[in-house]
Amino acid sequence: MRRIKLTVAYDGTEFAGWQVQPGLPTIQGELERVFTEIEKHPVHVAGSGRTDAGVHALAQIAAVSITNPIPLYNLKKAVNRLLPKAIRITAVEEVPEAFHPRFDAKRKTYEYRIVRSEVCSPFDRRYVHHHPYPLNVENMIALAPHFEGEHDFSAFAASDDRDVHERSKVRTIHLSILKNQEDRLIYQVTGSGFLKHMVRNMVGTLLEAGKGNFTAQDLSDAFKNPKGKAGPTAPASGLLLVAVEYTAK
Amino acid sequence: MRRIKLTVAYDGTEFAGWQVQPGLPTIQGELERVFTEIEKHPVHVAGSGRTDAGVHALAQIAAVSITNPIPLYNLKKAVNRLLPKAIRITAVEEVPEAFHPRFDAKRKTYEYRIVRSEVCSPFDRRYVHHHPYPLNVENMIALAPHFEGEHDFSAFAASDDRDVHERSKVRTIHLSILKNQEDRLIYQVTGSGFLKHMVRNMVGTLLEAGKGNFTAQDLSDAFKNPKGKAGPTAPASGLLLVAVEYTAK
Repeated sequence: MRRIKLTVAYDGTEFAGWQVQPGLPTIQGELERVFTEIEKHPVHVAGSGRTDAGVHALAQIAAVSITNPIPLYNLKKAVNRLLPKAIRITAVEEVPEAFHPRFDAKRKTYEYRIVRSEVCSPFDRRYVHHHPYPLNVENMIALAPHFEGEHDFSAFAASDDRDVHERSKVRTIHLSILKNQEDRLIYQVTGSGFLKHMVRNMVGTLLEAGKGNFTAQDLSDAFKNPKGKAGPTAPASGLLLVAVEYTAK
Repeated sequence: MRRIKLTVAYDGTEFAGWQVQPGLPTIQGELERVFTEIEKHPVHVAGSGRTDAGVHALAQIAAVSITNPIPLYNLKKAVNRLLPKAIRITAVEEVPEAFHPRFDAKRKTYEYRIVRSEVCSPFDRRYVHHHPYPLNVENMIALAPHFEGEHDFSAFAASDDRDVHERSKVRTIHLSILKNQEDRLIYQVTGSGFLKHMVRNMVGTLLEAGKGNFTAQDLSDAFKNPKGKAGPTAPASGLLLVAVEYTAK
């Protein structure tokens, strides 16, 4: 078997997220359909993690095991020909059979874009969160780095995941920075891993800080209390999975 | 009556062009629906010109006559609230009653984007023409300025318009320039006015030059012969109406 690592870019607007769901268009579903067509038998495509409905990726990492001896360059062309244009394979690589995009991932980087201008450009609208209301940006910029470090992120998990105690909700955030650029705020976050809805809940919390409703002390409290206060889940459209990093082997 | 000048941005991907067509979504149709709702009687919205299905605009100019005394700022907000997000009013201005966006227009600027990389980003795909094939870019860059000046553009009119002799096909091109930027070619053209499909046929001609099938001499011949050789119509997705200029009054 050949193990193929795929770098995948997608415009998530018209998909029900990464994960296969019967009857709904998903990124994983489209990839499995195409590789099944190439392999002529059902094929599983593993991802580095699920992205929610409407979330985008510049470089999601996936992997698939195939027997077809097609050269890598032709494989990439064939897969892109069979995929919808909203999903593109930007790189393919032959990797050891044991490679798993989720279990082997060391760091992930996400970006979240908030457009503050009164009118949101029609060309941006699918890829940003439009928030044309007053915000104390200094508060938000000051709070962002307080997410860095190793913390229990239970309060920032999806509500349907918050009470599942079997799995640790401890994650390490390496970088958490908010930049004010022209008409928009760009939030960049790199971490060891992220819980379901975690980045969107962190952004919702930053927006609460911008409204004067959340302080660094509140954040410190939230890390100590799994039922602690956190902001609402920010819209999916603003979120982009930028990179997944692996240790060189 | 108040005469209102509208600056309109739109993502044309999901519209059947500017002009009202029964049963199809169009930019003019959406604007007329919204102003009719505000005025409570049927309203006509005039544009600086039609754009084809799938063509985009950064600053199309339109005008509408209304009696509603609503302040301009509130009008802009109300119209944007009622329009689909793919169409945005970016500016409103009170102008003399005689203002007509088409007859008063002095210059128009279009941009056309050709992406040459093997893979086209999912975030670009709606707004460019993806052309991942060899091109002699130097030929194209050299040919572009030959469109400048006053010429008979009959050979570059839409085929269904080429034989209509009542109206002059003479137009003046002030600027015609092709730039090679990273993974893409950007064509910028400013002129006194443009025939139906004219910019797309000019781009199709530049692409023919890039394939070695069209020379400056061919262009000179095409200007002299209404049935002259011109390139095929380039896809709508790459075209963007950038600006419409009026003489200050």
